[in-house]
Amino acid sequence: MKIVFLGTGGTYPSKFRNVTSVALQLPGEVVMFDCGEGTQRQLMYSSVSFMKISRIFISHLHADHFLGLPGLIQSMSLNGREEPLNIYGPKGTSDNVRAMMNLGYFKSGFEVLANDLDEDVELGFSAYRVRTARADHTVPSLAYALEESPRPGKFDLKKAKRLGIPEGPMYRKLQEGKAVEIRGKKIEPGAVMGPTRQGRKIVYTGDTKPSKAIVKLAEGADVLIHDCTLDSTHASLASDFGHSTAEEAAKVAKAAGVGMLFLVHFSPRYENGELLEKEARGVFKNSKAAEDLAEFTVRYRD
Amino acid sequence: MKIVFLGTGGTYPSKFRNVTSVALQLPGEVVMFDCGEGTQRQLMYSSVSFMKISRIFISHLHADHFLGLPGLIQSMSLNGREEPLNIYGPKGTSDNVRAMMNLGYFKSGFEVLANDLDEDVELGFSAYRVRTARADHTVPSLAYALEESPRPGKFDLKKAKRLGIPEGPMYRKLQEGKAVEIRGKKIEPGAVMGPTRQGRKIVYTGDTKPSKAIVKLAEGADVLIHDCTLDSTHASLASDFGHSTAEEAAKVAKAAGVGMLFLVHFSPRYENGELLEKEARGVFKNSKAAEDLAEFTVRYRD
Repeated sequence: MKIVFLGTGGTYPSKFRNVTSVALQLPGEVVMFDCGEGTQRQLMYSSVSFMKISRIFISHLHADHFLGLPGLIQSMSLNGREEPLNIYGPKGTSDNVRAMMNLGYFKSGFEVLANDLDEDVELGFSAYRVRTARADHTVPSLAYALEESPRPGKFDLKKAKRLGIPEGPMYRKLQEGKAVEIRGKKIEPGAVMGPTRQGRKIVYTGDTKPSKAIVKLAEGADVLIHDCTLDSTHASLASDFGHSTAEEAAKVAKAAGVGMLFLVHFSPRYENGELLEKEARGVFKNSKAAEDLAEFTVRYRD
Repeated sequence: MKIVFLGTGGTYPSKFRNVTSVALQLPGEVVMFDCGEGTQRQLMYSSVSFMKISRIFISHLHADHFLGLPGLIQSMSLNGREEPLNIYGPKGTSDNVRAMMNLGYFKSGFEVLANDLDEDVELGFSAYRVRTARADHTVPSLAYALEESPRPGKFDLKKAKRLGIPEGPMYRKLQEGKAVEIRGKKIEPGAVMGPTRQGRKIVYTGDTKPSKAIVKLAEGADVLIHDCTLDSTHASLASDFGHSTAEEAAKVAKAAGVGMLFLVHFSPRYENGELLEKEARGVFKNSKAAEDLAEFTVRYRD
């Protein structure tokens, strides 16, 4: 599971950052959060295959978060995509996707399935579920948590040997949660497998003021990717426009007890993220200012 | 008068080229031809101020030629633009601009005036006129010629002295086309001014097969910027999709007797323009494969 920051700037692009988009590389598919203008070109500079994107989650309908959709869809189509593409977002998303698909002389060679999501809903696919929470922005906005299904516990090799289970196919059966039989005696998986382990969890906030709903959504996440438009000397400006400062993002990370905080959506006024990262680290040590095209592999905690 | 190539790729962007856009820097304003996705960011890397764009001419409504409009308009608005912006294009353009202005939660702080243009029409502004011609593409498409107003002829200093006109304000008056009086004798400007000289002329084709209408439009142009999607080994493919090869573009340049040919809209299959430039130069020596962010100053011929 790898996070690829495609665009880490907010409002409009700068020389240094494109507008918002984050890709999450999963086995066999890519999930994307937001898709600002120019995202398809950022994908070309990255290690992510744009043809493998299966689902795009839009946080809200401000241009810097969704204007990359029509160009990306068009390029997927020109490159022969046939698999449907799912797009989700808050109220208004499906109408907007429809409007974008009708611009100019465009016909997609594959199906685009756009759906409006409510807050506090859950959506399952492959080995994942995505949950939504209301973000606190100036227009209807959703934060998303992607959670991996729990993994089986650890296989206790010593115990297995002590029980006289021969190495080989029986080990796999037990790891798959099935019982085996040895000399007429049934051995349940629980005899050799430790407790089920949590899957990985990534939370993407989109644009938001600090929010209790997001603290709850992000509880225990491995990675929190949080709005960090300004530093705390501009706290009231951030609040007026429905954004967070670095300090506020870090407080959310701390309250939610996440493993790692990535700051994104910097105002174009910042040429680099040093000041913002420093501010966040003062509150929550595992904070990092994300950079365009930076990658981060999310490892299992145990 | 300076041409700035913002995007020289066709169909979809590549690592090496963004999709189509050409800016023309005029005294006090910028005119733009086409505006593919990501053009606003290309502008940031260039010497062109995106706030000075007064008019955008769209060749046709394929996404690689217009999807950069909503983001650009939005960023102009966020940066406090108040002057209206004029957008022109073939049939359907004003509907499309309206649809783009209604995406998401967007309100422009300035007026966007979009107009559909017919072929063979003329439009005047400042010291320029823009004429349209039908391009030969798969959807309604326009080629544009921007022509500068004629300049006054050269001032003949020797003649002026021979006529006893004193240096100073009278010289300027004559250069401005006004008569002066010396010792009761009226001297008309024609007595010291040479014949009116042609203004500069730039032609931008958009996507097109070789076209007689474009040869006519481009007659005697200083610069012709022509579709060059493929090399001549793919001539039938180019024709099927309403495009030109390098050789075809060069033949148009030769037939129109232009000063200089710039090739643009390369298929993403070409990592550089060497092959295409070489092919064009075989037919028309003053051919050049344009590169993203390249600039070219258009000087007066006399």
